[in-house]
Amino acid sequence: MNDPVTHAKIDGARLSRRLERLGELGAIAGTTGVCRLALTDADRAGRDLVVGWMRELGLAVSVDAFGNVVGVRKGREDGPPVMTGSHIDTVATGGRYDGNLGVLAGLEVVEALNEAGVVTRRPLAVAFFTNEEGARFQPDMMGSLVWAGALPLEQARATVGIDGLRAGDELARIGYAGPAPVGKPSVQAYVELHIEQGPVLEAEGFTIGAVTGVQGISWTELTLAGQSNHAGTTPMTHRHDAGFVAAEIAACVRRVARELGGHQVGTVGALTLSPNLVNVVARRAVMTIDLRNTDEAALQEAERRVFAFAEQAAAEEGVTLARRTLARFEPVAFAPELVARVEAIARDLGHRVRRLPSGAGHDAQIVAAVAPACMIFVPSVRGVSHNVEEYTAPADLAAGADVLLRLLLELAA
Amino acid sequence: MNDPVTHAKIDGARLSRRLERLGELGAIAGTTGVCRLALTDADRAGRDLVVGWMRELGLAVSVDAFGNVVGVRKGREDGPPVMTGSHIDTVATGGRYDGNLGVLAGLEVVEALNEAGVVTRRPLAVAFFTNEEGARFQPDMMGSLVWAGALPLEQARATVGIDGLRAGDELARIGYAGPAPVGKPSVQAYVELHIEQGPVLEAEGFTIGAVTGVQGISWTELTLAGQSNHAGTTPMTHRHDAGFVAAEIAACVRRVARELGGHQVGTVGALTLSPNLVNVVARRAVMTIDLRNTDEAALQEAERRVFAFAEQAAAEEGVTLARRTLARFEPVAFAPELVARVEAIARDLGHRVRRLPSGAGHDAQIVAAVAPACMIFVPSVRGVSHNVEEYTAPADLAAGADVLLRLLLELAA
Repeated sequence: MNDPVTHAKIDGARLSRRLERLGELGAIAGTTGVCRLALTDADRAGRDLVVGWMRELGLAVSVDAFGNVVGVRKGREDGPPVMTGSHIDTVATGGRYDGNLGVLAGLEVVEALNEAGVVTRRPLAVAFFTNEEGARFQPDMMGSLVWAGALPLEQARATVGIDGLRAGDELARIGYAGPAPVGKPSVQAYVELHIEQGPVLEAEGFTIGAVTGVQGISWTELTLAGQSNHAGTTPMTHRHDAGFVAAEIAACVRRVARELGGHQVGTVGALTLSPNLVNVVARRAVMTIDLRNTDEAALQEAERRVFAFAEQAAAEEGVTLARRTLARFEPVAFAPELVARVEAIARDLGHRVRRLPSGAGHDAQIVAAVAPACMIFVPSVRGVSHNVEEYTAPADLAAGADVLLRLLLELAA
Repeated sequence: MNDPVTHAKIDGARLSRRLERLGELGAIAGTTGVCRLALTDADRAGRDLVVGWMRELGLAVSVDAFGNVVGVRKGREDGPPVMTGSHIDTVATGGRYDGNLGVLAGLEVVEALNEAGVVTRRPLAVAFFTNEEGARFQPDMMGSLVWAGALPLEQARATVGIDGLRAGDELARIGYAGPAPVGKPSVQAYVELHIEQGPVLEAEGFTIGAVTGVQGISWTELTLAGQSNHAGTTPMTHRHDAGFVAAEIAACVRRVARELGGHQVGTVGALTLSPNLVNVVARRAVMTIDLRNTDEAALQEAERRVFAFAEQAAAEEGVTLARRTLARFEPVAFAPELVARVEAIARDLGHRVRRLPSGAGHDAQIVAAVAPACMIFVPSVRGVSHNVEEYTAPADLAAGADVLLRLLLELAA
């Protein structure tokens, strides 16, 4: 095998420029943050920009029935491609790196290979999946789930978003309900570069994370129904206060996460009271619970404790409780041989590297069900992500892209 | 003195019909509830209806610069009128009795006097005050505060509502910024009939409540500012979760109310998280705290405990806390001679009557600063109010109006 690495070179400045350009679409004024919720006009603009770049780089672009986009660079042989990618949708107050980095680093790898005149044996593909964030339509990772055949297309299309609109309608509206089929992926291997979104790499002085797997995720919506009543005249003992029970449950989520320790985290990020007035006892509370752990048994224990407490707290207040699972993913382990290669390549390139699990969900964990998959992490400053202040230094972005280039070349050779 | 009581008679059916007609404006579909927030189109419709009735009954209607409406029935002599009234705005999910009863019972008294051909010595006035509820513009009792000279007109007009609109603009838009001056009231005495909005009268089998005074009210808004971050990747020990602190404070409000006991109540009715997403640690929480007590020292103790806890909880989580007083009223005692007359008249009419404090704020407590004032309560079924299921039996409405008629005649004689 020839050694194409000596010829192909990542251009970190070019990668940063693309991140900046894409980050201008849906930019949040006065910040470097981005609001590009899945299937909105801003998402369409982002998609159009990236698809345009794919075509300029000579990739054959296909759009599937759920809007997942794949750009393929021909190899010397046909057959399943080696794939990289991520997503370009963001949360409502997101940054410009989460997801976008993995897609644009894939384009940078392609451009580096084009410049060096390298033709790989196997085809290379760069993908971006629809609605990874789950911020508008739940569950998250919806696009890769449909792509992988793990979620029926019609179910995903019927999903109603936080604004009351259907995913299928929005997909058609922005022109990304494509002709390519879903549910029958054929991929040689998958590598996803992503920002860590946590504080570990920066705090411990590492440039590259070799991601061992992804935490299991449990998302639940609780709806508490009590009785609205006058805040001044209703004795405390006569109340059926849905908001009070919600507050107790939110405090319990924190307590359980601390009790279980280890990799257990727990968050109540969304809570809405009705009628939400200063002088009316809340009739209704709708809240979400996000629990994650690398260990499935511990995650189940966290669910058990929180749900048992919620039932008891609701019963004591005379409030009814309805529970709905929004998303549930077991922990995923990435292909050990690929994790080892990330580690070895990073070290070979002179970077400090450590193994770590991902605390966030990623498309790679969905792809892992149908192909050997792995992830490369680069540091997030102060661990900040899903926040307009999300930032990763250009040198770290380029280091991650270097590792990605080398690993994709190995896999496509 | 002649005895006009033998001639004038309350028509309970007519009173109920007026309550029903007014309740149709802003009616909440499928319920008997009403949404007629202050200075909305629905409020304008309600005002127009009531003003029309006032004119039909021969009252001289004046509208002041903050939209407070007073209809005066001439007496044999000029001079300050004996006044009754209340408000016709509702909370977002209110009933048709709260406030409306006091205004429409005033009209019923006028109609009964008209029918009986009774002319009182002093003038009689029926008033409704703007924005008693404080559900759209805070503080509550805004109209009576302006009327009484306790809140500057310009400050009230500049108040921005929950929808971002200014009270003064909305007042002008609906055509109720009137020519009558505010801040120099001249009233002989004030009597307000109101539903109890609590469970005491019904639970103990009383028809009439002789209201001794009004609980002190403390409304506070807390704004907690932390850091939004990824719910999966941020270790629990690294969080600055504004939503978690808000939940702890809400639980503390209940705890303090229970610890203090007596007439102390505490409510967190409004709580809003930002960005309010399942997988993002809340950057910001805005919450209200409603504390009430008949005893000012105990109310101050409740405030002290809740605010101290809030400061500590915020500091422990690394979240900043800003506190803003939305409203603060000390407990008010009504004129003892009037309270005694309510009690005596009710007993004389054959009703079971008890003294009790009001847990809710009322315009009467504001008027009490400028004239002898009192209130008459009638039972609320199950104590339910600020709720579409609010209900008072027609016989109890009529009993309250009977007591009102007798007391107004005494005061105007």
